Amino acid sequence: MRPMDDIITLAYGSGGKKTSELIEEMLLPAFGNDILGELGDGAILPNEPGERLVMSTDSFVVTPYVFPGGDIGKLAVCGTVNDIAVSGGEPKYLSLAVILEEGIPTADVARIVCSIAETAKRANVRIVTGDTKVVEHGKADGLFINTTGIGVLRHPGLSPKAIREGDVVLVSGTVGDHGTCVMLARNPNLVRGGILSDCAPLYDLTKALRPLGTGLRVMRDPTRGGVATTLNEFTEGTALSIELDESAIPVKKEVRSASDILGLDPLYSANEGKILAVVAPGQAEEALRLLRSVPEGRDACAIGRVTASHPGKVLVRTPYGGSRILVKLAGAQLPRIC
Amino acid sequence: MRPMDDIITLAYGSGGKKTSELIEEMLLPAFGNDILGELGDGAILPNEPGERLVMSTDSFVVTPYVFPGGDIGKLAVCGTVNDIAVSGGEPKYLSLAVILEEGIPTADVARIVCSIAETAKRANVRIVTGDTKVVEHGKADGLFINTTGIGVLRHPGLSPKAIREGDVVLVSGTVGDHGTCVMLARNPNLVRGGILSDCAPLYDLTKALRPLGTGLRVMRDPTRGGVATTLNEFTEGTALSIELDESAIPVKKEVRSASDILGLDPLYSANEGKILAVVAPGQAEEALRLLRSVPEGRDACAIGRVTASHPGKVLVRTPYGGSRILVKLAGAQLPRIC
Repeated sequence: MRPMDDIITLAYGSGGKKTSELIEEMLLPAFGNDILGELGDGAILPNEPGERLVMSTDSFVVTPYVFPGGDIGKLAVCGTVNDIAVSGGEPKYLSLAVILEEGIPTADVARIVCSIAETAKRANVRIVTGDTKVVEHGKADGLFINTTGIGVLRHPGLSPKAIREGDVVLVSGTVGDHGTCVMLARNPNLVRGGILSDCAPLYDLTKALRPLGTGLRVMRDPTRGGVATTLNEFTEGTALSIELDESAIPVKKEVRSASDILGLDPLYSANEGKILAVVAPGQAEEALRLLRSVPEGRDACAIGRVTASHPGKVLVRTPYGGSRILVKLAGAQLPRIC
Repeated sequence: MRPMDDIITLAYGSGGKKTSELIEEMLLPAFGNDILGELGDGAILPNEPGERLVMSTDSFVVTPYVFPGGDIGKLAVCGTVNDIAVSGGEPKYLSLAVILEEGIPTADVARIVCSIAETAKRANVRIVTGDTKVVEHGKADGLFINTTGIGVLRHPGLSPKAIREGDVVLVSGTVGDHGTCVMLARNPNLVRGGILSDCAPLYDLTKALRPLGTGLRVMRDPTRGGVATTLNEFTEGTALSIELDESAIPVKKEVRSASDILGLDPLYSANEGKILAVVAPGQAEEALRLLRSVPEGRDACAIGRVTASHPGKVLVRTPYGGSRILVKLAGAQLPRIC
C-alpha cells in the first residue's frame, strides 16, 4: 500500500479525490476482485439460475475495536456469514460499509481492512460493493462497520417452527468466550487469563450438518444476549420449553472465573464462533459426530432437551436437582459487544 | 404503536427484551412483510430462477437528520435504490441496519422509521432483514443508517466503458438542490428560501430509458461530490473528455443564490434525486423525451458532449467563450451530506 495521510480526515469521506485514494490504495488491493473492481454504484452478482438466496445484515460497533483473538473487521465478516450459514445458506457475497471517525489512525484502518480481507478469504466470500463515510471527531467511536451478505440457500426449511417435543439441543463448543474476552479487554487492570474471542466463520460447521436433512430443525449463532436469549427466541410463543442441564454446558474454566469477577453469566455472554442446533432425538448422536468432525465443533455436546413442561420457557437444571428459568436478557449486560 | 421509553437506552441494543420490544412495537408494524416477519438471522428471498442480481450498500450519516424535503430515513431508502436503479437494476429488497445514540428521542426514531416505510413503499422495495445497535451517548450522532439493496438486472451492459466520442450527456433535472438544502439546514440564521432536498426514488426514471438499449451507455446519480465528480469518474483514465455547456446546466435560482452565499459550487453539491445519463448522439432527443415523461425527469436536458479534446478531463464552457477544467472534488466541501 502506498502511504496515505497518517490519520483519516473528513476529506476521505467526501466522495472525491481522497475517497478514491482510500479505495485505490487500501481497499482494492485488499479485496480486489472482478466484481468489486468495476466500481459501479451497484455490483452485478454472477448468481446461478434457480438458486434461492439468503440475505443478512449486521452493524458492528464493538469496543475496543481490537481484542484478543480478533478485531472489528474479523467480527464484521464472521457475524454476517454466520447469520447466513445458520439460516441454511452458503455465504457468497458481502457488502462492506464503514463509518470512520475523523482522526482514526490510518494504520488502524489498514490493519482492520487486512483482517476483513483475510477473514473473507477464509470464509470464501467476496466483498463486491462498499461505501465509506467519515464523520467529525467525537461523532463516532473509531469506526463502525456494516456488512450485508448474500448466500445461496442449501438447507431449506430450518425454522424454530420445526422444533418438536423430545428434540435435543446441541452447542458446538464452549460458551461465553467472546463476551468475556471483550469485557476483559475493556478493563486493562484485570488479568486476561489468556481468554480469546471465539470469533470464526462457521459455514463449514453448518454444512457438516446437512446430511441430517429435516432432522436438523433450526440453527442459530448465540451472539448478543447469548445462549439464554437465543433459546428463548426458539420457545417464545410456542407450547414447548427447553430444559438445559447446567452441568453439560461447556464453559472454559478461565471464562467462568472471569465471569464471576465481572458479574457476568456465560449463558448471557455473546459468542461469535458457536452454533446452537436443535435436532431430532434419533439423530443427536450423528449430529454430534458431524459437528466434531470440523475443528470449530470439536467440543460439541448436547446440553438440553425440548419438553412441554413449561410452555414458552427455557429452564436450566442445576447439578443439585433444582431448576431456574432463564429469561431473555433484560437490560444491557454487555453493550457494544459486537 | 404502543408506548416505549421516551428515549433510546443502551438496553434497546442488547439483543434481549428491549431489542425485541423495539422490533415488535416499532419496526415490524412499519415494515411488516412475510419475509421480515420470519425474524431469522437471515432472510430467504423469493427470487425467480434466471435473474441476475445487483447489490449496493450505503451508510447514511447526514446532519441534521431531518431537513426540508426529507430526513435520513427517506435518504437511506432513496440512496440505495437509486444506486441499484442506475446500475440497470430493478430494486427489490433492502436490509436496514441502524446505529442509535443512547438518548435519542424515541419519537425521532419512530418518525424516521415511518419515513423509511413510506419511501420503501413508494420505491416498491421490501425491507427483509435488519439490525439495531445502540452506542453510548456521545459515541455517535443521533443515528446512522445502513441500507443494502438487492435488485434484478434489467438493463445489462451499462458502464463508463461503453461511452463513445460524440455521445451526449443528459441530466434529469436541476443540480445542487440536496447539498444546498442540507447546508442551509445547518445554518439556522440563514434564510432557507424554500429550497427542498430533491431526495426521491428514481427507478421509474431509469426504467423509462430502457427502450434506448445499448444507446444508453451509463447512468449514475451524482450524490457526494456532485455532477463534476461523477463525470470525472466517467472520463478518468480514458482517451475521452466531457465538455459541458455551463449555460445549459439547470440550477434553481434560489440554489444559485444560496450557493454564492455559502461559497459552494452547485456542480460539486450532492443531488439525491437526479441522474446523469450518457447516450448515443442519435438517441439524445428520444432519451430526453423518455426522461421528461416521468415526473422526476420533467426538467431533463442535455448539458454536454463527449469529445476527445482533453483526454481524461471534464471541461465546462462558459457563456463568454472561455472554459475551465472541472477536477474531482478535492477536499471535503460538504461533509455528512448523505
